[in-house]
This record gives sequence, structure tokens and C-alpha cells, in this order.
Amino acid sequence: MNNFTYSIPTTIHFGKNQITHLNELKESGNRVLLVYGSGSIKRTGIYDEAMNILKENHMDVFELAGVEPNPRIETVRKGAQICKDNQIDMVLAIGGGSTIDCAKVVAAAAVYDKDAWDLVIHPEYIQSALPIYTVLTLSATGSEMDPFAVISDLTKNEKLGTRAHCLFPKMSILDPTYTFTVSKKQTASGVADMMSHTFENYFNNVEGTQMQAGFAESILRCCIQYGPIACNQPDNYDARASLMWCSSFAINGTIKLGCEVKWCIHPMEHELSAFYDITHGQGLAILTPVWMEYILNEQTSARFAQMARNVFNITENDDMKAAQLGIDALKTFFFETMHLPRTLKEVGITNKDQFEIMAKKAYPKCKGSFVPLSQKDIIQIFERSFE
Amino acid sequence: MNNFTYSIPTTIHFGKNQITHLNELKESGNRVLLVYGSGSIKRTGIYDEAMNILKENHMDVFELAGVEPNPRIETVRKGAQICKDNQIDMVLAIGGGSTIDCAKVVAAAAVYDKDAWDLVIHPEYIQSALPIYTVLTLSATGSEMDPFAVISDLTKNEKLGTRAHCLFPKMSILDPTYTFTVSKKQTASGVADMMSHTFENYFNNVEGTQMQAGFAESILRCCIQYGPIACNQPDNYDARASLMWCSSFAINGTIKLGCEVKWCIHPMEHELSAFYDITHGQGLAILTPVWMEYILNEQTSARFAQMARNVFNITENDDMKAAQLGIDALKTFFFETMHLPRTLKEVGITNKDQFEIMAKKAYPKCKGSFVPLSQKDIIQIFERSFE
Repeated sequence: MNNFTYSIPTTIHFGKNQITHLNELKESGNRVLLVYGSGSIKRTGIYDEAMNILKENHMDVFELAGVEPNPRIETVRKGAQICKDNQIDMVLAIGGGSTIDCAKVVAAAAVYDKDAWDLVIHPEYIQSALPIYTVLTLSATGSEMDPFAVISDLTKNEKLGTRAHCLFPKMSILDPTYTFTVSKKQTASGVADMMSHTFENYFNNVEGTQMQAGFAESILRCCIQYGPIACNQPDNYDARASLMWCSSFAINGTIKLGCEVKWCIHPMEHELSAFYDITHGQGLAILTPVWMEYILNEQTSARFAQMARNVFNITENDDMKAAQLGIDALKTFFFETMHLPRTLKEVGITNKDQFEIMAKKAYPKCKGSFVPLSQKDIIQIFERSFE
Repeated sequence: MNNFTYSIPTTIHFGKNQITHLNELKESGNRVLLVYGSGSIKRTGIYDEAMNILKENHMDVFELAGVEPNPRIETVRKGAQICKDNQIDMVLAIGGGSTIDCAKVVAAAAVYDKDAWDLVIHPEYIQSALPIYTVLTLSATGSEMDPFAVISDLTKNEKLGTRAHCLFPKMSILDPTYTFTVSKKQTASGVADMMSHTFENYFNNVEGTQMQAGFAESILRCCIQYGPIACNQPDNYDARASLMWCSSFAINGTIKLGCEVKWCIHPMEHELSAFYDITHGQGLAILTPVWMEYILNEQTSARFAQMARNVFNITENDDMKAAQLGIDALKTFFFETMHLPRTLKEVGITNKDQFEIMAKKAYPKCKGSFVPLSQKDIIQIFERSFE
């Protein structure tokens, strides 16, 4: 096991009616920037519920609405300006990962003199941030309990992740009932996202990390157990609750500590989203099995076989055969059970013109991953994902 | 899944040479009470290593040495007095769970006007504490990353647990190499302790908590995998590291959140230690399989069968049979592989005279556990553990 530092400063209030904990925001002041997306929180009533509690606690609320599914740097800049103009004390995101990611970089840019994009391309510039609070409405990215944010500049075809310890939310409210209205498609994409986070951490070369691997396997089994239930019975509490808590634990650090992990599917998918603005979870579902088959060999088969046996209950003794059966089982789960798209063509990508430049941009971010990938390898993975 | 609040404020520095992080103590002031046990930290050199770093950082060090294996309230009182007399800013425990537990209650008693024992019998009286830092030298109790402390008043045959959020250490240093010198007996007792914590959390009646159950199973598998290696190759880093991290995760809250857990083996064992001052982990190893067989029935067999299959690789399809095979496998592991004592007689308890009073004292603390236990049940479990 490698050396590591564990520190998750986020307090989570998990369960029904936890929204009342919004009264804790007053510990950070009384001027809050409320960040949200397309307005679905108004239809579902969460907006009113939150506003009532904030008003009861005498908070002055400013708003940044309309955060995009792949949140844009322009929106971050707008939010940061509102903070600077109005002496905002804290940022409250109500929404899914995009809204939370946007709010995080707003919180950092609010106390930064220059342009917010600097903080995306230079994570080390993030020295502090306003306190960040979140109310989660979509189980997927885990941003409610992690130090990461992904922001896009579509004028440059850039979608980049940044990170800083001060981007961990101070407090997050996870009420599974808020995800009852999430569509089948979004539920499935969220499951693909959290499974991808788990795979990115699980596939590593560090010995002596079986506890963490077992945690990852448990998350994957829960996704497989509860994903279809959440799609077919959208108000099944235990299914929504399990997926919500899985989404947090897939990325909060617990399963990767001591493992020396470098992700590679996410950097590849970020290029897809940056060039084609597709749904992140769908891109991950398409790429993941292709990547697995691409890197499966005698050296890597043991970990794939472990996944096959511990996650998909494959009983085959031969590692290579078990590994392939595990990948097949994952494909069946993604594409048949969860009805996720199988190819890039299915999500509207009609030609391969950008694959070379995308591979060039993804390549440096994939360095050091489970199996080293060259630019040619990455192009191959895009090609094989095409149709 | 039940509602819960997650908050683990402890920062963990895990791995080789992490002792250098003792320089972080200066964030809390410069007057530190160093708490340790019988002096083994002097023989192993950790004492000198720590003192050098503290001196380099201009800390004034006061000492509370000689903390007992079942730490006594008298020692806590002595430590609290040192704190009050010397305007101590923080407490640093170097040792195992007993030392850390003692240091925690010292830290709370240092800022409490009346007698420290109040804080043991009335956890709600603990409103604040000096900052607590720890350097762990024994993988067992998980006190390095939890809000609990167990203190004994042997004049009253009392061994009681207390808890408060402010008893979470601010920072803990977990260097697995510091456990290379731990004896086979203490290693085995530690493994029994962390497995018992895991079982106490695992056996609950709340639906929809399979992610947490899977985490627990992973901890148990690691204990079974690495416990014997640590006994036979005391300087096997990955074995010591895995056990160390398992000890923290068995009790830091992660595997019980949402599960509504009430422990019962620990309250029973605390009576054994309170009356006979035996080694905690040994008492747990004796009681646990007896308790399991005592409560195994058609209603409880499903969870036992799950344990058997997921932890001990039992392939039996019938739940009752699988459950019994799982318990048998646990007994084999404890008593044959780890050479833990099998009966109370083996740890020097020669008569049953105290069982009734012990059961009476344990009974109220066991209420609400996985299977409700009457005083008669508890007496029966003590009786069956006797020889």
C-alpha cells in the first residue's frame, strides 16, 4: 500500500427531510449565492423549500441560474462577478454534479483576482474558496463529497478537471427522495458515471490494497442491484438511497487511498464532451467496455477476473476466460439492462475527424494509468467505440 | 436505509515516515501533554523520534506515562490535573487504543470542572475537549479515527464507553512499521477486536444497506487474509498496513451509517474486563462465536449465510447450513489459525460466580441489538463461553 493522507472535511446529512439542515449556512454568514440549473428545482418544489428555510434564517439570497449540463466557464465568470459585487459569504448549489462543479469554481474564483479559467487549467492557483454547500438532486458525479470540478470552454473545445482541498463542500444534503423525479436516461447515465469512477480507482497496480478493492466491488454490486430498480421504480427509496451513497463513495477518496490511481477513461470522455457536448455518463458507458477489451491481456487478466468473480458472480476458473465473461456481463448490464448507448454514432457523433486531435489532448492526462496508453491506442479506443 | 449524519473530521497521515507530520501540532499551540503506556515506545525509538520533532518545533512537552491496557479513571484524573496545572494546549497519544482512549478523556476532562468519571457515565456532559493527536502503534480498537473511549474504574468493576464528536482526533499518524514489533498474541487480539467491531455493525436489521455490508465483508476478508501473515511475518508491510487501515474502518462509522446499529458483544466483554481485567480482544474472540450460535435461527440465518458466502467462500445453498459452516470457519480462524483462546477458563476465569451480576450490568447496554437478549440469554452466553 502506498502512503496517503485521508481528509474528508464534508459533513453529509443523508436521508429524508434533511433539507432543514440548511439552517447551518448561517455559520458562514448571511449572504448566499444560490446556484442551480435549468429550473427543475422550481418544478419539484425544492427551490421553494430551500428558500423558505433560508429566509427563516434571515439569509440574503442572490442567484446564478441556468448552469449547463457541461458547465461553461462563462457561467462561472458570471457567478464569480455576482460574488464580488455583492460581498457573498458562501455558495449553495442545488442540483447535480454540473451545478455543484460550477458552484465550486465560482466559490474559488470569487476570492481570485484574475480570470476564473486560470483556476481550471492551474489547480494549484486555487488557494482558498468561499464555503461551499450543496443539496444533491442527481446521483452521479460524487461532486457533493469530493474536491473536484470539471468545467468546459466550448469556444476552445476544452473540458478540464480541476481540484483543491478547499473545494470539498463544507456540508452536503443528500435526500434520496429528491432523485425520485430523475428520468430513466439520467438515472442510467448517473450509474455509468459512478461505476466508471469506481473502475478508474479499481484498476491499479498497487499490491496490498484489497480492502479498498473490496469496497469498490461492493459499490459496483450495489449499482448493478439498484440501478435497474431505480429505473423501473423511480420512487424506490432504498434503490435511490443506495445509488446516492454509492455515488459519493465512488469518488470521495476512500476506495483509492493507498492505490496510486491515474484515471484514463475520464480524460478520453472529456474530449468527447468537449468536442460534441454529449452526456458524460453515456460517453463513459460507451468507452469503458471498449477500453477494458483493449487492455485485457495475460498481465491484466487477474484484476479483470477478480472483478468478474466478485462483481458479476462469474465462476470460471481460468482468468482470461473469466475476465472476458466479466466484460461481457458489464456490456449486458450497460446496454441491455440499463439501455445505455453502445456506440458514439448512437449519441450523434457522425464522423471520426476529431479523433486524432482528441487523442492528442487526452494523451498527457492518461499517463500513468493502469495500462499505459499511447496516442495511437487512444485513437483505436475511439475508433472501436464509433459503431 | 436510515437517515444519518456523516462527519469524520480526523486527518489521517498513513504510511512510512509520516511521523514528520507531528509538526502540525503547532497549529494548536505549543504546550502538549504526551500520553503513553508502559514505555515500549522508548524501546522502539518512537519516543525519541517524536520528541525530536516536537523540540524542533519548540513545543513544551509534559508527560503522562504508564497508561494501563484497560485504562483507569485514576490515570485520566492524573492527566487532566497535569493539563489544568500547566495550561496544556493539546494532547498527543502515542500507543494503542488504551492510550488513545485515556488521552481522549483526559482532553475532555482538562476543560471540565468536576470529576472525570462524570464524562464516562454521562457522555452528554462532554461539550468540548483539547485537540487530540495520535500516533498509532497497535492495530485494533480504531480509536485513532473514532469518537469513542472506554475507561475502567476497577474499584467499582466498571468498564464503560463514552463518546462525543469532539473526541475524534484532529490528526492521527498511522505508520504500519510501528506495528512490526507487536507480538503474535497482541496482533491476534487486535484482529479479533477489529473483526468484532465489524460484526457488531454488520449484524443489523436495516434493509437497503448492502453497500455498507459489502464494505464490512471486505474488512473481514482482509483480516482473514492478513492476520496470519502479520503473525508469521511481523515485518510484512502490506499485511500490517492492511490491518491498520481495517482497524480504522471497522469503527469510524463508514460501515454502520444508515444501519441503526446497537452493539452487544462489546458490552458483554466490557463486563469480563471490568471483573477480570482480561485482554479485550481475547474476550471478544471467545464470546463472538458463542453469541453467533446462540442467536442463529431461521430468522437470522440469511445474514449469517451472507457472511459465510462472502467472507468465508462457503458455497452451500441452504442458508441454515451455510450459516453454521460460516460460524465454524470463524472458529477455525480464531482458535486454530490465530491461536486465540477459546474459553473463559483459558484466560484465567475460574468460576461463574459473577455471571449474574455481569449480565445484569450488560443487559441495558445490549438493548436494541440485532437479536434482543434477555439477562438470561446473556448468562447463557457467558456459561457457554466458560469451558
